[in-house]
Amino acid sequence: MKLVINKNELAAAIQIVVRAVPSKTTMPILECILIDASSDQIKLIANDMELGIETVVEGVIEERGIVAIDAGIFSNLVRKLPDADVRISTNVDHISIVCENARFNIVGRDGSDFAYLPEIERREGIVLSQLSLRDMITKTIFSISQNESNKMMTGELLEIHGDTLRVVALDGHRISIRKLELPEVYPDRKVIIPGKTLNEINKILNGSADKQVSIFFTDKHVLFEIDQSLVVSRLIEGDYFRIDQMLSTDYETRIRINRQEFLNCIDRATLLVKEDDKKPIILLIKDGSMELRMNTTLGSMNEVISIEKSGSDLNIGFNPKFLIDALRAISDEEVTIYLLSQKAPCFIRNDVEEKSEDSTEKQEYCYLILPVNFISID
Amino acid sequence: MKLVINKNELAAAIQIVVRAVPSKTTMPILECILIDASSDQIKLIANDMELGIETVVEGVIEERGIVAIDAGIFSNLVRKLPDADVRISTNVDHISIVCENARFNIVGRDGSDFAYLPEIERREGIVLSQLSLRDMITKTIFSISQNESNKMMTGELLEIHGDTLRVVALDGHRISIRKLELPEVYPDRKVIIPGKTLNEINKILNGSADKQVSIFFTDKHVLFEIDQSLVVSRLIEGDYFRIDQMLSTDYETRIRINRQEFLNCIDRATLLVKEDDKKPIILLIKDGSMELRMNTTLGSMNEVISIEKSGSDLNIGFNPKFLIDALRAISDEEVTIYLLSQKAPCFIRNDVEEKSEDSTEKQEYCYLILPVNFISID
Repeated sequence: MKLVINKNELAAAIQIVVRAVPSKTTMPILECILIDASSDQIKLIANDMELGIETVVEGVIEERGIVAIDAGIFSNLVRKLPDADVRISTNVDHISIVCENARFNIVGRDGSDFAYLPEIERREGIVLSQLSLRDMITKTIFSISQNESNKMMTGELLEIHGDTLRVVALDGHRISIRKLELPEVYPDRKVIIPGKTLNEINKILNGSADKQVSIFFTDKHVLFEIDQSLVVSRLIEGDYFRIDQMLSTDYETRIRINRQEFLNCIDRATLLVKEDDKKPIILLIKDGSMELRMNTTLGSMNEVISIEKSGSDLNIGFNPKFLIDALRAISDEEVTIYLLSQKAPCFIRNDVEEKSEDSTEKQEYCYLILPVNFISID
Repeated sequence: MKLVINKNELAAAIQIVVRAVPSKTTMPILECILIDASSDQIKLIANDMELGIETVVEGVIEERGIVAIDAGIFSNLVRKLPDADVRISTNVDHISIVCENARFNIVGRDGSDFAYLPEIERREGIVLSQLSLRDMITKTIFSISQNESNKMMTGELLEIHGDTLRVVALDGHRISIRKLELPEVYPDRKVIIPGKTLNEINKILNGSADKQVSIFFTDKHVLFEIDQSLVVSRLIEGDYFRIDQMLSTDYETRIRINRQEFLNCIDRATLLVKEDDKKPIILLIKDGSMELRMNTTLGSMNEVISIEKSGSDLNIGFNPKFLIDALRAISDEEVTIYLLSQKAPCFIRNDVEEKSEDSTEKQEYCYLILPVNFISID
């Protein structure tokens, strides 16, 4: 194999595929990036058997071939080479990498041991902007469960119904939902994508509104086509939770509040909460104002924020982290919160009629958070 | 106690003294910042018994008093308060912190348990610019030993002789020296300052050339006066190593080399070195060019750099990290390296006549690095 590739293009391609290289594995071949120049294209591939990424890099193929190279060394080395053409060639069991006066000889591995990505037919996929997809993932993924005991909670539901894409993440205490109108109608689909896949996808999506991403499905896999890259991931199997029956629209109390002010106030209050402590923040909702209270072994705080309220007064407690996560995921200047009782979840959502001020595109959002019991509020 | 202090001034003052709060201690009072408003000034003090910092913060004293408050909570809380006046008052065993609508009650501690800084008479001190001091520390401190077994190597020598300030750091494998001409002649002094103190001092020095720092000495302590802050540190006791006899000016080979090019090349070569491996980088010095070689289990590299050489050819090996550290600490575009033999240390130093291109001030530098044995260079 003999290739000539521009250093910056090569470095960029490595940075994409390296996301599928596992940090720990018992199979050394998985720690490699495969350079496949067996046809007319130079492809880089990495695969941890759950998630696989393949990307095409521009360059000259002087002699075809395939070789696998340790991902860590390859990525660091290329990053530190001078900005010039990189010549990669194989000789017996070594890979020679030459760039200007620098000559490296790295131990290579036989490419034939490498696990290629599963073949997925690219048809009947959905298309949306990279920006929208990244936005939907970022603004829901904090709600997936970190606990592997319920596998389904460690992924996100991606649901296509008519011309609507809905993304759902939940961990048993809260649900985060984002909805986006697609430009056309697609066949119905419901898949659960591992959180890890979505985190890696998010780093590859370059976030521009005029670039597209295509998503294709099989029973066991999902394929994202992003620019010159293909990302294939296993799906989490099973029927996702029926969330629609939890999404009541009843409420007794409805408040409008400045998002940043509310967020800053909760953020300050959590300074009194030690790491593993589960102290709720208590909201005392009255006409025109809401008082926030926090009481821990370190001290206590209270702060009054002005709100617009309709409906009944209510005292209710929440895990402050869940409120913070949801409020950070919203870009609107003001948010509307719907509450029913001390025991019922609150909903932070934008009205369907109301135009979202989200900088990105029109997305409907709904953040459901279960309240926490609290004892006294003197 | 009743105080009113602007939030930003208070936050800045806390950020200074918090550097002397130990991260782990068996004495809870040391985890506190003392607010001392017993006289006409508001002072914040922290002290881990090795290093103590005191700073004055502007504000209104409505009622005098002293109280100690947990440093972690105090610093995070103040940072997150709105940008407005902060009212601090004490009531029984609590400290009330009020800022706009936010009201916090934090558990306080009796200030009388607190260990004040040792009194140090401020006379016969030396004065230099904050920029120079920070520069001298930053560009030598990487050479102190991380190993506590030889206490003296964990500090830096600060030596005043006539109108010259010399700073020395060494770890048994290398010596880093910076010299600065002071504006006047001071009495001779030799003190060993703990590395930790210098690291913290460095963060407080704001690095501007027109701001001064004064340094005062006693037998056991050193005091830095930086703007509104006093930093007191214990000294490391003992006689420092006699380094002057190691600083030979004999050489057989002298090379001039582009610093950045040399640095980049070594940096690339170290990619082949695993964490705990001690592989040397081998320099093959010839007329007009130097070849660098590295050979490890991961692979090998070689690269040729053009140099200006006078004297004999030489093959010599070094720990690449030591070369990298020294080259990073120099700002000159080209460096001069003096070598004697395969077994003798190399010296990277600027000629006394030669004007340093250091962005800061005229500083003389000398980096001595011991070579490493290597077996074959085919």
